[in-house]
Amino acid sequence: MPGMKANVYVTLKKGVLDPQGKAVKSALNSLGFKEVMDLRVGKFIEITIDGAGKREAKKRLEEMCRNILTNPVIEDFRVEIEE
Amino acid sequence: MPGMKANVYVTLKKGVLDPQGKAVKSALNSLGFKEVMDLRVGKFIEITIDGAGKREAKKRLEEMCRNILTNPVIEDFRVEIEE
Repeated sequence: MPGMKANVYVTLKKGVLDPQGKAVKSALNSLGFKEVMDLRVGKFIEITIDGAGKREAKKRLEEMCRNILTNPVIEDFRVEIEE
Repeated sequence: MPGMKANVYVTLKKGVLDPQGKAVKSALNSLGFKEVMDLRVGKFIEITIDGAGKREAKKRLEEMCRNILTNPVIEDFRVEIEE
């Protein structure tokens, strides 16, 4: 059994400064991509998870996100389970 | 005009080692999330882009990805434009 695939998207909360994103935006602008108005960098985590149902897996993944994968003070997350 | 929103997903190519993902997986396993079988960490970039049509925007975004946002030797990317 190959396990279930899940994607986790981690983004900075609105209002939290993103110096990395700012640097990338400036780089793009100065390299000719002047149409870039805003850019924010987050994380994309692909997880293969064993057993359980989809519902249970999602619950466990959200627990991982809250406790370990993200900093809930400054980051939001979204969990998506692939079919 | 508020601009068009796009999401870019950057992942390591299959076969490329991911030490960060490995470390996160081990941490999760040892903290009680033993169901995690595999984990890979990528980037998620939210871009607001000005003007042009959807088709043209996508072309430009792919150009940014190939030339600046990713390392095409070890990374894959996917561009998605929000409605």
